[in-house]
Amino acid sequence: MVRIAANWRPAKGSSMAEKDKTNVSKTTSIGIDVGGTKTRLVLLDGNLQVLEDIKIKTPKIRQEFEEELTKPVRRFLKRSKEEDFKVSAVGVGFAGTIDHERATIKSAPNLPDLVGLSFRELLQDLCKCEVAALNDVHAALYGEIKVGKAAGCKDVIAIFIGTGIGGAVAIGGKLHFGSSGEAGNIGHYLLHAFGPLAGSERHGVLDDFASRLAIAGTAATFAAKGWAPHLLESVGTDVKNIKSAAFADAMRSGDKAIEELVRSRMQIVGIVLSNIVDFLSPEIIVLGGGVTDAMPELVCAEVMAGIQAHSTASSLRDLKVVAARHAGLAVTIGAAKFALDVKKS
Amino acid sequence: MVRIAANWRPAKGSSMAEKDKTNVSKTTSIGIDVGGTKTRLVLLDGNLQVLEDIKIKTPKIRQEFEEELTKPVRRFLKRSKEEDFKVSAVGVGFAGTIDHERATIKSAPNLPDLVGLSFRELLQDLCKCEVAALNDVHAALYGEIKVGKAAGCKDVIAIFIGTGIGGAVAIGGKLHFGSSGEAGNIGHYLLHAFGPLAGSERHGVLDDFASRLAIAGTAATFAAKGWAPHLLESVGTDVKNIKSAAFADAMRSGDKAIEELVRSRMQIVGIVLSNIVDFLSPEIIVLGGGVTDAMPELVCAEVMAGIQAHSTASSLRDLKVVAARHAGLAVTIGAAKFALDVKKS
Amino acid sequence: MVRIAANWRPAKGSSMAEKDKTNVSKTTSIGIDVGGTKTRLVLLDGNLQVLEDIKIKTPKIRQEFEEELTKPVRRFLKRSKEEDFKVSAVGVGFAGTIDHERATIKSAPNLPDLVGLSFRELLQDLCKCEVAALNDVHAALYGEIKVGKAAGCKDVIAIFIGTGIGGAVAIGGKLHFGSSGEAGNIGHYLLHAFGPLAGSERHGVLDDFASRLAIAGTAATFAAKGWAPHLLESVGTDVKNIKSAAFADAMRSGDKAIEELVRSRMQIVGIVLSNIVDFLSPEIIVLGGGVTDAMPELVCAEVMAGIQAHSTASSLRDLKVVAARHAGLAVTIGAAKFALDVKKS
Amino acid sequence: MVRIAANWRPAKGSSMAEKDKTNVSKTTSIGIDVGGTKTRLVLLDGNLQVLEDIKIKTPKIRQEFEEELTKPVRRFLKRSKEEDFKVSAVGVGFAGTIDHERATIKSAPNLPDLVGLSFRELLQDLCKCEVAALNDVHAALYGEIKVGKAAGCKDVIAIFIGTGIGGAVAIGGKLHFGSSGEAGNIGHYLLHAFGPLAGSERHGVLDDFASRLAIAGTAATFAAKGWAPHLLESVGTDVKNIKSAAFADAMRSGDKAIEELVRSRMQIVGIVLSNIVDFLSPEIIVLGGGVTDAMPELVCAEVMAGIQAHSTASSLRDLKVVAARHAGLAVTIGAAKFALDVKKS
Repeated sequence: MVRIAANWRPAKGSSMAEKDKTNVSKTTSIGIDVGGTKTRLVLLDGNLQVLEDIKIKTPKIRQEFEEELTKPVRRFLKRSKEEDFKVSAVGVGFAGTIDHERATIKSAPNLPDLVGLSFRELLQDLCKCEVAALNDVHAALYGEIKVGKAAGCKDVIAIFIGTGIGGAVAIGGKLHFGSSGEAGNIGHYLLHAFGPLAGSERHGVLDDFASRLAIAGTAATFAAKGWAPHLLESVGTDVKNIKSAAFADAMRSGDKAIEELVRSRMQIVGIVLSNIVDFLSPEIIVLGGGVTDAMPELVCAEVMAGIQAHSTASSLRDLKVVAARHAGLAVTIGAAKFALDVKKS
Repeated sequence: MVRIAANWRPAKGSSMAEKDKTNVSKTTSIGIDVGGTKTRLVLLDGNLQVLEDIKIKTPKIRQEFEEELTKPVRRFLKRSKEEDFKVSAVGVGFAGTIDHERATIKSAPNLPDLVGLSFRELLQDLCKCEVAALNDVHAALYGEIKVGKAAGCKDVIAIFIGTGIGGAVAIGGKLHFGSSGEAGNIGHYLLHAFGPLAGSERHGVLDDFASRLAIAGTAATFAAKGWAPHLLESVGTDVKNIKSAAFADAMRSGDKAIEELVRSRMQIVGIVLSNIVDFLSPEIIVLGGGVTDAMPELVCAEVMAGIQAHSTASSLRDLKVVAARHAGLAVTIGAAKFALDVKKS
Repeated sequence: MVRIAANWRPAKGSSMAEKDKTNVSKTTSIGIDVGGTKTRLVLLDGNLQVLEDIKIKTPKIRQEFEEELTKPVRRFLKRSKEEDFKVSAVGVGFAGTIDHERATIKSAPNLPDLVGLSFRELLQDLCKCEVAALNDVHAALYGEIKVGKAAGCKDVIAIFIGTGIGGAVAIGGKLHFGSSGEAGNIGHYLLHAFGPLAGSERHGVLDDFASRLAIAGTAATFAAKGWAPHLLESVGTDVKNIKSAAFADAMRSGDKAIEELVRSRMQIVGIVLSNIVDFLSPEIIVLGGGVTDAMPELVCAEVMAGIQAHSTASSLRDLKVVAARHAGLAVTIGAAKFALDVKKS
Repeated sequence: MVRIAANWRPAKGSSMAEKDKTNVSKTTSIGIDVGGTKTRLVLLDGNLQVLEDIKIKTPKIRQEFEEELTKPVRRFLKRSKEEDFKVSAVGVGFAGTIDHERATIKSAPNLPDLVGLSFRELLQDLCKCEVAALNDVHAALYGEIKVGKAAGCKDVIAIFIGTGIGGAVAIGGKLHFGSSGEAGNIGHYLLHAFGPLAGSERHGVLDDFASRLAIAGTAATFAAKGWAPHLLESVGTDVKNIKSAAFADAMRSGDKAIEELVRSRMQIVGIVLSNIVDFLSPEIIVLGGGVTDAMPELVCAEVMAGIQAHSTASSLRDLKVVAARHAGLAVTIGAAKFALDVKKS
């Protein structure tokens, strides 16, 4: 359990912060971001500012997961009580699909043992407040619409590029869940619409080319071939060790092949998005995830380049591509905000 | 000017027909479908049943267009007056983009001389009623949501495959126009997300492979090679003469190469849609346009096959793919219904 | 039967012309180029200079073909006799595959009724001399190696871009027939090595994109859309009328879309060749066929651009791309030279 | 320096073995296979049977390379002298390009410090016999034509799938070097002939998809995702440790995702070859390299499947796809045989 000093501050005078000040001053909320490898939990004050920030490894076994998740939550409850705050809501953003009615995990590609777990059952009695859960990118997009870069926007797409690639979409200022409740799936986007089949249907989707893990797989072969000496020296050829920050480091140190690799893969994300942009015509695309967080300017530039190369002029006219305001905290803040708003409604 | 006996009847007991019966019994509306080559105008009764149906060639010159369009409208007005009907609204579906505020043509790839024309200015004084205009596929989708196959559905995609390919999307039961006002653009969908560039950016989009004209271009080469003897005999090798009905005829007569061609191109539409389906998770996809109208079962089956081959299980679970209820009348009825509803609101 | 004044002259001092002068001065040979739509027959003198040149439509029915083909041959025999020349050999280049042993047609995609016909049986008794037959591009390459642009070269590739696309390859200065006898097949080259299958295996090969007929199919759709006004005016939208010369004319008149189309398709030929070039490392690539003949500089430039963009430096170092010296006569001259050399050996 | 008991025996009664028995009984030859990571040296008797087999790591620094390479050679010379054998020839197969005239390294992607080294200068004075060098796949193909699976064949293609992918071609029973001396380059084969460009030209060639290293890069991501538990347990996620044998082991242990991955990538090799097969029409394709050696039946089956799916019937009629007879010894035996034959000529 690692504790991190809170260093995020919402932009001064953000409308949300001002408006709700009086009635929220003595409340807190808890935001939880459950990822395939790491889980982050934050205690937020009434202005959604971080009071405490804890990261743990995500346990793969359900019982262990339940135990480990409740420890930092108890800590947040204790502190809130000591400091005379009331915990108003707990929001969970999960790397998988969620039944919103019951805050239950429906599917979890990387955490299969957790399917069926209800965050409400796990946390409601403990916290004595509203507990809501939703997909992690849905959560992040919610946060960005309410108190982030997409505040005031109606039609918004979020793309988070991390270990995998996830998406979310808002129409008319509201999250769009779709018939399946899982709208926003873009990792499964098929890159080539025709040609002869060679083997697996699983190969050839966006996730296989542009996720952190996919880029790491190719970067490792570059390191093994001697094309990326700095990456080889700093993290070696094991894909588990090749994180987003390692790409950024290698590029700064002069590994041209890594820069070209990352840029070309981010451009593929943009090319894919050019088709979505033409179909939905959003005002703004919010990018996040580990790869974006490690090099936000490069990622935004290449994604925009890919979109600009192929979208129609009318779709491009007012389109903005930005990195999420809350970066690594996007899911936690978005999930907490979602739970607070569910409570009110 | 060709007049066609009305042969369309809404399904008995359709909710719309029942609900509005009393107060609409003595009103009519006019629906207009302005396409790149043909324009269709219908006079509808209060239950949106066709009283009269007129097709004209679309004049390319603005002045001529205005003259030719008003002739059948005057005829409808005259008949309504004679039969003691009041014309409540005129709706126009246009093969291009429309400024909804002013019912003005913003862009028209196949009718460039018409840009700037306001249907409201042209028809409001004449008809003395609400005049509304929108993109033709937007209009068709509106009709299908209100009084067609997608009635009662929230998240709907419409794809119309004719001379070109157009799309439209509804979220939460409402048409989604997007930031550009032109959401639904799918003809420009890029089929291959990466690979080396060979020449024009224009080549390689959905419209270049799956529109009626694109299929006709390849079908003509098949006819020239002797691979499609029935097509060759019936319509020859001139793409202007190879209409959707000609594909269906050639297939019935035994031109295997044409059947394989049409099926494979419709499957490409499905494969492209599999990506959109995963991103938006609609309940229903409504297909229309000349190619669909000529062979609705084949088109629906191949599009569904393409989607099923690549979309995720959760997106597919409740998904339906259907041909538009109103077939060739989809745009006219949808546009009229849109104008009627604009009037009420 | 159309007679054309001979206007081709071999380059002065070509080694062949000099060497064989004395013993060939009173001999002639006949070269025949049997294509899917047209057949060309030439009477050549001992220096392979054209004495007479006749074009006929290729009859599709075998009996008719045999009758029509022998008419100009009889005429050549008669003239040779009158002018006291001895006909030494008859060579046939055929748009299909040939059993060289018996000079018999093995397959003929566009002339299926001719399969089984033996040119030797048809012509040997009539002409009383060696009769040899081979594939048309093989014939053209033979001529270019012996008395054309590839004289003195060892490793040579020929690509002929006409109604279809054909190829041939020579290694060590000798035609390479391969195990099938049909080496050089490039029209069937699959453009995309992987991706999901959509329908027919027949679609997606080089012939479907870069043959004259394929380009005509797309050009017709451009004309129909109003993107190629000059082409539309000069030849219309019937692919049968859109010949290679029509592309060149339309480009000269300012049809940018046609220029871009032809250039991009020729570049695809180059990109495909870049893979063959890396595998075989030829010295020279000889281009021919109707598309090349109509715009040799543009075709050579775009093919070279495609190769240069992707082949390795070592393969490119000494590589030349040229248009066939004998242009429209390449097959006839090559076939005659082949028959003369078969006779000698 | 690892010594391995010789376990390879040529098929009994192979023509070579019988014919040359008397005059070669007291001679030996040395075959050397210099790869990017490992070098293998064998002492062969007069029937090309292995007397001694030594593997060393390939030193990257030239001076070190020269020292380490001569040690086992000296050992072979000593043993030959002791046992009263005369060393007739030394043949080197090198993972790069060679100037055959001078047996000098022209390029070496993985061993750049060795460029310029002449194997003749290094070894001729020491061994006092013919020293020849050539590309490693050229060497292996030579061996297979002379004393392997392609004995008696005229038109042969060899594809070796190891850390990278290399090829070679023989026409008329003779190695084809081409204008560059480097014919057979297939690792650089561009998989998609058109589509929009995304970033690097280096991405998208056969080597990036089907080499051992490329497959290892993707396999590592599968292991990291939990899709390949056996691979994860046996060798982990470091691409340097994921060798060809690890794929075979993981497949035997039940890692379906790895089996599907390897099969689909080998099928891509076949699809690529289908284009080469149509162009050259070889009688036989000989497969080798580490991936083939680890699972020869699977690799031959998938490559054949890829070819059969796309090549024309005439090219396929007599085509055979086989694994190299000499497997891991193919380069050493081929190189030695080449040097022996150079000496004779």
